[in-house]
Amino acid sequence: MDTIINEINERLTEVMSSLKDGNVKEAMTYSLMAGGKRLRPLLFCYTLKSYGVDYHDYIDVACAIEMIHTYSLIHDDLPGMDNDDLRRGRPTCHIQFDEATAILAGDGLLNESMNVILNMDIDSSLKVDMMKVLYDHSGVNGMIYGQQQDIYFEDHQANLKELEDVHHYKTGCLLSAPLILAGLIANKNEVPALKDLGFTIGLAFQIQDDILDVTSDTETLGKPVGSDIDNHKSTYVTLLGIEQSQDYANKLFKSCLEKIYALTLNHGLMIEIIEKVMKRVK
Amino acid sequence: MDTIINEINERLTEVMSSLKDGNVKEAMTYSLMAGGKRLRPLLFCYTLKSYGVDYHDYIDVACAIEMIHTYSLIHDDLPGMDNDDLRRGRPTCHIQFDEATAILAGDGLLNESMNVILNMDIDSSLKVDMMKVLYDHSGVNGMIYGQQQDIYFEDHQANLKELEDVHHYKTGCLLSAPLILAGLIANKNEVPALKDLGFTIGLAFQIQDDILDVTSDTETLGKPVGSDIDNHKSTYVTLLGIEQSQDYANKLFKSCLEKIYALTLNHGLMIEIIEKVMKRVK
Repeated sequence: MDTIINEINERLTEVMSSLKDGNVKEAMTYSLMAGGKRLRPLLFCYTLKSYGVDYHDYIDVACAIEMIHTYSLIHDDLPGMDNDDLRRGRPTCHIQFDEATAILAGDGLLNESMNVILNMDIDSSLKVDMMKVLYDHSGVNGMIYGQQQDIYFEDHQANLKELEDVHHYKTGCLLSAPLILAGLIANKNEVPALKDLGFTIGLAFQIQDDILDVTSDTETLGKPVGSDIDNHKSTYVTLLGIEQSQDYANKLFKSCLEKIYALTLNHGLMIEIIEKVMKRVK
Repeated sequence: MDTIINEINERLTEVMSSLKDGNVKEAMTYSLMAGGKRLRPLLFCYTLKSYGVDYHDYIDVACAIEMIHTYSLIHDDLPGMDNDDLRRGRPTCHIQFDEATAILAGDGLLNESMNVILNMDIDSSLKVDMMKVLYDHSGVNGMIYGQQQDIYFEDHQANLKELEDVHHYKTGCLLSAPLILAGLIANKNEVPALKDLGFTIGLAFQIQDDILDVTSDTETLGKPVGSDIDNHKSTYVTLLGIEQSQDYANKLFKSCLEKIYALTLNHGLMIEIIEKVMKRVK
């Protein structure tokens, strides 16, 4: 797993090196190379590997996914959004640089995520098919809708159904995209099943996130714990309590295993990466 | 010209209607439909028309260009950037809505600009070629670099060469892209000449902008006049004075005419649109 992370980091460094020097490039690099877990690129590479496809040929897609994820974190942390000072154990982008640079760094990462895919040496039709999935999942009918609803429910009480809907979009979209993209490359027939698996992983991931926000500590997590409570956010923990939330996460994990066994790929490899997502401590 | 503007506005409305309802969609629509001059889409449609190509088949490209332009305005106006309250004669996006919604609306417009092109019913290879131009021009090696340098020169004195460089990227990139994109569709051989023409138009446009900032009034312009002086920005007017700036703009306009006559297209139509850009009063 570490090998893939290193390969992704190396390629991200190469991608960034093609950009014009300045504050924005520095800020993009600062946030991108802050030692994130790379879960989304790993999900993509592992799914390809599980289908017996050499992920090296598509590592730029993994980079694009991580760039989109990082842009969303930079903008989420801005004073006008969540106003967070700490991310991945370091000052957030607008604290380390300034607000204008952080806004542009986010814009830059979204914009350059496209250029990475556009410049790949693969069929144009595959590029277009993959970008359709990626930018549908990250856009106003996907992740951005989730971010909007997340803000809405800071001032409004969410029930469990509404909370699940927020997370479906805010977290699920960009966690299911890697699986769908790998499916487009490796096995088009199984795309619907991969999508379903991806959203289940997304939900389990989010419940884990809510649990960690109250059971972990700032040092381990690299971001302030208890921020959900401070922001008056409804979470699985506030709605269900820790124990029931953990039960729900375990149930979803089991459901993921069943969905994996129904796919025609290397089950062991897929379980390895799903366990990484589920059993994380940060 | 008004017919094309109406057609673009109609198509933009259609494009927006496919998005999930909410604050972000409202804010995107508010800024997008605020009655902008649509110069960039007009440049694209007129260039196609001048080559004898039916622009209706490519109107989604015109929409994508305007969406990118609007996203850049929304983010430029944010408190963390230029902190402007007025745009196109109306409250800016973050004043009308709130900062979080304006950040997401900008992100949404950039993201959805891609989806508009990705969903077009044309060859994948043409889509990819056009998107390469568009997102290279709008990205960290293009418009975003210009925005970064623009901020840098708020605190640093720029000379004429540096100022021209800022505007080459900040304004020129997204004014030359429509011509290059039309060239990719209509006449690949003339793309380099179209690019050169586009950047000359961009420079003339910017000088005109600097002149209007001191000679016009807020009501006509729809945004505060004198903001360049308030922000201590170097402009053509502060460096050359109004008269010399006007001479320079006139010289560039003549140069544009020469460049147009060297192209194998309908010269009258191209001059019509260039005059619209040059002789604007707002």
